[in-house]
Amino acid sequence: MNWLLPEYIADALPPEAARIETLRRTLLDHFRGRGFEYVMPPLLEYLESLLTGAGQDLNLRTFKLVDQLSGRTMGVRADMTPQAARIDAHLLNHQGVTRLCYCGNVLHTLPANVSAGREQVQVGAELYGYAGVEGDLEIVRLMATAFERIKLPLARIDLGHVGIFRALVAAAGLPAEAEAELLALLRDKDVPGLAESTVDLPSPYREALLSLPTLYGGPEVLEKAVAALPGLPEVTAALEQLRHLISSAPELPFSIDLADLRGYHYHNGIVFAAYCPGYPAAIALGGRYDGAGKAFGRARPATGFSMDLREVAQLAPATRLLSGILAPYAGTDKELAAHIAALRERGEVVVELLPGETACEGPFCDRKLVQVGGHWIIEAIQED
Amino acid sequence: MNWLLPEYIADALPPEAARIETLRRTLLDHFRGRGFEYVMPPLLEYLESLLTGAGQDLNLRTFKLVDQLSGRTMGVRADMTPQAARIDAHLLNHQGVTRLCYCGNVLHTLPANVSAGREQVQVGAELYGYAGVEGDLEIVRLMATAFERIKLPLARIDLGHVGIFRALVAAAGLPAEAEAELLALLRDKDVPGLAESTVDLPSPYREALLSLPTLYGGPEVLEKAVAALPGLPEVTAALEQLRHLISSAPELPFSIDLADLRGYHYHNGIVFAAYCPGYPAAIALGGRYDGAGKAFGRARPATGFSMDLREVAQLAPATRLLSGILAPYAGTDKELAAHIAALRERGEVVVELLPGETACEGPFCDRKLVQVGGHWIIEAIQED
Repeated sequence: MNWLLPEYIADALPPEAARIETLRRTLLDHFRGRGFEYVMPPLLEYLESLLTGAGQDLNLRTFKLVDQLSGRTMGVRADMTPQAARIDAHLLNHQGVTRLCYCGNVLHTLPANVSAGREQVQVGAELYGYAGVEGDLEIVRLMATAFERIKLPLARIDLGHVGIFRALVAAAGLPAEAEAELLALLRDKDVPGLAESTVDLPSPYREALLSLPTLYGGPEVLEKAVAALPGLPEVTAALEQLRHLISSAPELPFSIDLADLRGYHYHNGIVFAAYCPGYPAAIALGGRYDGAGKAFGRARPATGFSMDLREVAQLAPATRLLSGILAPYAGTDKELAAHIAALRERGEVVVELLPGETACEGPFCDRKLVQVGGHWIIEAIQED
Repeated sequence: MNWLLPEYIADALPPEAARIETLRRTLLDHFRGRGFEYVMPPLLEYLESLLTGAGQDLNLRTFKLVDQLSGRTMGVRADMTPQAARIDAHLLNHQGVTRLCYCGNVLHTLPANVSAGREQVQVGAELYGYAGVEGDLEIVRLMATAFERIKLPLARIDLGHVGIFRALVAAAGLPAEAEAELLALLRDKDVPGLAESTVDLPSPYREALLSLPTLYGGPEVLEKAVAALPGLPEVTAALEQLRHLISSAPELPFSIDLADLRGYHYHNGIVFAAYCPGYPAAIALGGRYDGAGKAFGRARPATGFSMDLREVAQLAPATRLLSGILAPYAGTDKELAAHIAALRERGEVVVELLPGETACEGPFCDRKLVQVGGHWIIEAIQED
């Protein structure tokens, strides 16, 4: 009877919903402990606000609605990052660094892939107003320690840098419309396609673009990249940023993938993707998107990351769920009512059975409150 | 520059967002402690599922979208209660009592009134599978104790009973299309309008319907109602249920309003509305809607309540926000990094300043970590 819900749309039932809620709290507390303030942007905005600075892909993924009050087109957010950038640029007006975090539902018109849902619970953190690589380091570390907190090990963190691709296509004089095609070929690591579509580009930029899919592996790839790529100032600076990041956090499982530019619709600096052991898709994505907020009046340096809590909940180890106590109906028995209230005050889950209710099919109850010799005591429930 | 967001749509910024998050956790923990299991239904469903059993008002309030995968019309939920009923009826398949709670965004095409937002954070709890008035009592008490937990006093809880209105219009032989008109007149306490539109109804049902707007006040109104209303079995049973509820919970500030039928689009038994001192609108609404889930294969007794956390957050007393500690950039200083990590482990908010960052405009920091004689100590930050 799954036809009741649209495809790629699902309920989270107990105990999955409880797992997601626990993860949500752990992550938001983690962010708060590092000074990231919680914001709640709305589900709906005017379409221009949601898509500002983003590419066509986000446009196609966004559900459109007509505002009956203004006649304008609104969208249901498909990504909360542009909303956080709007809040930083337009509402908070801090001159220095702003640290924000958020957790909320986002909707996609179509699933990104066969295993992705169309409704995600996006949780993330963003750092505004700091252009230095130490900002990227803070965000990558925030992500890595977040995974520690939820006891989900990371197999690797792939690093890329959109600035390298941008510098190469600019130096090669590539028209903007060809850039998107090249980007898609790179993302798919389609080497024959790349060779064909770069055939008219000047040397050494053509060779450099063709080498990007091969610049993949451990941190030593950075040395290979220095040799393979032309010494454009932006390329040199980008490689130096990556080197700084890797050497500053030797505890993190970094690898390099200079063709991994999936977030290019608004990213323009260091980008990263975190992977868990045995799970093929990236579990968290992030990177730098300087200039965010320009459409809202203030171009600000920006870097951040986010992930889908529903996906994370499938991978994170199960937390122990609270077990409950079954209590008889208190009715007018004030002593029993006070006893139940005291147990709940101590953090116990107590299900007070209604008259005629004999068992509880909901929360797992392994104990019951029974009266023995005039006293209320807690007994284990015997398995049948 | 509020034109950036659609009318009646707003961001929740710090510290408002933090207040809403604290309330959210307190309420969900309260529900969990009483055996209500957390579920997360989706934002989007096929329109028929969202509107099943509900009236035209919910239809007009629901944003419609076309599903690109099926071509069918979907809605963005305007109310989570029908979703909880679907989960109980269709997915959980418990034979006994099911207790569910939820917290999520709902959207309305138009604001319900000038002070309401079009995006609400609906938090609520529902009890399925129990037809007795003890179920209503459990839900009303759950609501009242929830307000105690968040330290928001209740001025009164208005009780009504949709069964009285239903019995009267059935006995009067009123056609279904006239019922909705009468309901609107009752809700507005439009006595002249009521007199006009009931002019052809037989006695004593006309007089009884006309008396409903006057059956308002303290619990003693129940005695007046017995005298004023015809002794139909359904009316007698409804008044008896209300009497039982009031006498079972003498600690609650009940009042009676037999014309208060605002939730009639799916309610059919005891309904209630909770009010805070000095705030004109109801802060929480609930009641019985037996038969919920029928469209999903199982008609089940049902009662529950919900409220808008954004509205509650405006009324609830401010909770103390965590104050933070400013720490210098640790960089390669492992001792300082360990010190910061230990403070965070103890629950402190520690903002590690980036190189060149001198102050923090975000979380309120009243202390700083400074090195004195080779030791790291926490000092108060002097006000200028």
